[in-house]
Amino acid sequence: MIALLTLASQQSHGEGDGGHAGIYPFLFAMTIVLLAAKIGGEVFETLGQPAVLGELVFGVVLGNLYLLGLTGLQGFQHDASLALVAEIGVILLLFEVGLETDLGELVEVGMTALVVALLGVVVPVILGYGVSLYFLPEVGWYVHLFAGATLAATSVGITARVLKDINKMQTKEARIILGAAVVDDVLGLIILAVASGIIKSISAGGSSAIEIGPILIIIGKSVLFLAVAVFAGRYIGGTILQLGASAKVGGMAVVLSICHCFALAGLAEFVGLAPIVGAFAAGLVLREEHFEGYEHVNPEKFEEIVSPVSMIFVPVFFVLMGLKVDLKLFTDVGVLSFAAVLSLAAIVGKQVCSLGVREKGLNRLAIGVGMIPRGEVGLIFAGIGSTLMVAGEPVFDSATFSSMVVMVMVTTLATPPILKYVFTKDD
Amino acid sequence: MIALLTLASQQSHGEGDGGHAGIYPFLFAMTIVLLAAKIGGEVFETLGQPAVLGELVFGVVLGNLYLLGLTGLQGFQHDASLALVAEIGVILLLFEVGLETDLGELVEVGMTALVVALLGVVVPVILGYGVSLYFLPEVGWYVHLFAGATLAATSVGITARVLKDINKMQTKEARIILGAAVVDDVLGLIILAVASGIIKSISAGGSSAIEIGPILIIIGKSVLFLAVAVFAGRYIGGTILQLGASAKVGGMAVVLSICHCFALAGLAEFVGLAPIVGAFAAGLVLREEHFEGYEHVNPEKFEEIVSPVSMIFVPVFFVLMGLKVDLKLFTDVGVLSFAAVLSLAAIVGKQVCSLGVREKGLNRLAIGVGMIPRGEVGLIFAGIGSTLMVAGEPVFDSATFSSMVVMVMVTTLATPPILKYVFTKDD
Repeated sequence: MIALLTLASQQSHGEGDGGHAGIYPFLFAMTIVLLAAKIGGEVFETLGQPAVLGELVFGVVLGNLYLLGLTGLQGFQHDASLALVAEIGVILLLFEVGLETDLGELVEVGMTALVVALLGVVVPVILGYGVSLYFLPEVGWYVHLFAGATLAATSVGITARVLKDINKMQTKEARIILGAAVVDDVLGLIILAVASGIIKSISAGGSSAIEIGPILIIIGKSVLFLAVAVFAGRYIGGTILQLGASAKVGGMAVVLSICHCFALAGLAEFVGLAPIVGAFAAGLVLREEHFEGYEHVNPEKFEEIVSPVSMIFVPVFFVLMGLKVDLKLFTDVGVLSFAAVLSLAAIVGKQVCSLGVREKGLNRLAIGVGMIPRGEVGLIFAGIGSTLMVAGEPVFDSATFSSMVVMVMVTTLATPPILKYVFTKDD
Repeated sequence: MIALLTLASQQSHGEGDGGHAGIYPFLFAMTIVLLAAKIGGEVFETLGQPAVLGELVFGVVLGNLYLLGLTGLQGFQHDASLALVAEIGVILLLFEVGLETDLGELVEVGMTALVVALLGVVVPVILGYGVSLYFLPEVGWYVHLFAGATLAATSVGITARVLKDINKMQTKEARIILGAAVVDDVLGLIILAVASGIIKSISAGGSSAIEIGPILIIIGKSVLFLAVAVFAGRYIGGTILQLGASAKVGGMAVVLSICHCFALAGLAEFVGLAPIVGAFAAGLVLREEHFEGYEHVNPEKFEEIVSPVSMIFVPVFFVLMGLKVDLKLFTDVGVLSFAAVLSLAAIVGKQVCSLGVREKGLNRLAIGVGMIPRGEVGLIFAGIGSTLMVAGEPVFDSATFSSMVVMVMVTTLATPPILKYVFTKDD
């Protein structure tokens, strides 16, 4: 009735302020995106590929229907409501990943994850710098630095989803990748802060000296947040969840779990970290015992508590990532060759991660492959590069930006099948 | 990582366009709203009252914390993301109500529901006109007409939720109320179109004649939509759901159900009806047989298929309704006395609904009480009244608007306990 009346009032007295255009565009968009996700997932599952790849590919299809003259879906990419659903989707995904991860086992792989993450940042930065220098000899060194930074970013969403799809979340390799991804998130923030700082300094005509103070603050904040989240989050969130078991009103377990997740995700972002770091920590601290006593909940399957909710949100994230892929970019040879070499550097660069694994008997290749996807993180780095200005020119011009986008697509689309292959070839 | 980088980039190069301020305000708001809903629901359930009343009252508390100097939550009322969640919430609620409603049984009460709805519109319009005439003798007659229209609106959300809370959704009384609510929705649209049309005509210096053409179009569109939704929706949506049972990817049942609901809700709004009419129709046409063959779904409990999702969305709608109640209005005597008489007229006016019930042995009082809440519909009518202009003056001045808001609050807050009482006193 709300929308009906709003609509009616706008039609009848023409005073619509544009603030409420009705909810039906969003409802239709969600229907199309969810159906595309499910059909894509089903097709690829039938072909023996991870469902997430189908969601990405069908997202690409939706996003490029305009090439066939169907322009009706072009608005999806910039729809704020869909973006919100997608962002909640990736938060819920990492929360679920956290629920499935045992904290003790994660600490066990902590040192390895740290080394893996550091290697996976340093080598791609150097490779990205080199590739950029070769293809763009005429531009300033800060462009190469930013290109390197873009190559260093890791997006854990794709890998986590593939690991879930192929039931490998409980492996030691999966824990190392996830641990490294958390470290990577912090490293990504530091690199961005440093690179942006240098460029701003150059742009303002100042020196290009790197200040150590802000870097230490970011590192300290991250470590402090994780410590607080893991210890306080466990006792506060866990205690509230246990209290909820004796409540009379229904739905306490799922609502309190979501609140616990949202609170820590929000807190993470509030202190300057990624919300998904908080969501992952939120899942990490919850255990079977917190879900005992609930009438309709099986504590042994507590990690499935938010599944029906995440099933609505998570696919939207992956379809939207696919939607942002513009196939027209693949027709420019200059962009393509730069992009091809960048993609190669991106993939090879992360393979050194496997050198950080000292334990024997592990599938090192899988760890290197799991770190490949740049996903949304790479897109954001590229986006920032295209808006940062030096002497009136953007750091990344249109061709460089497009090449970066192609690199992101390649790493994102290539990872699911490769990861599935390296994880299951010995089974 | 998305928000982290966006945040970092905004901090570091100050180019934030304001379009993405981070997701943490939304995450915190959701946490607070959901916790308030659950605590409020639990407190009222313990007191023997419906949980929804607790959600409303705790919403009122959150919305009026500013009176105690806590202004941090004032943004909730105008937050577009929360509003979206709330709107999806009421759509999912009506979908669930539809799932629990048997179409055959609804048709059985069709004639009764029609008469109930008509009586429940005509009498409040007359009463509202009269009360307005008595309190505001100096204003134009169109103000009285609009006041009457505001009194005629029915909000089925509150009643549906109470009926669910007290397990009375399967009664014949519940079916009559729901059927009448669907008719009411169409009548509301007609009244608004007519009243707005007259006012626009007066404002433009034209005649105040009522045109019959547009009225017939609205009625025809509504009947056509319901027929299409019930017949085509059943075969298309139902067939897709049955196909989904053989899929390999998980979550098909819940995702396809949501798609079915969103598609019909969107379609309803698209043709000019309320989305909740479409959502209700979507639920109405689904049956046990559509959910057979799914691995993790019990077809006998298909009406619970979207429960975990609706548990996150629905409470947000009720807390937000409570949030919009400004307790400061209760301190103005003029507003209070006008509002008190309006509220009385609103409550008494709907009691004639029970006269439309010819069947014997039914709880007629319950039907009259179930039609009382004006909820968000009344608020929207009042809002439109305060923006429609005649000769530079709004149809509803500030005091009239405030009185209407108080009337809405009273009918909304009073219904749950009264409805529970009249439904259970004979048990």
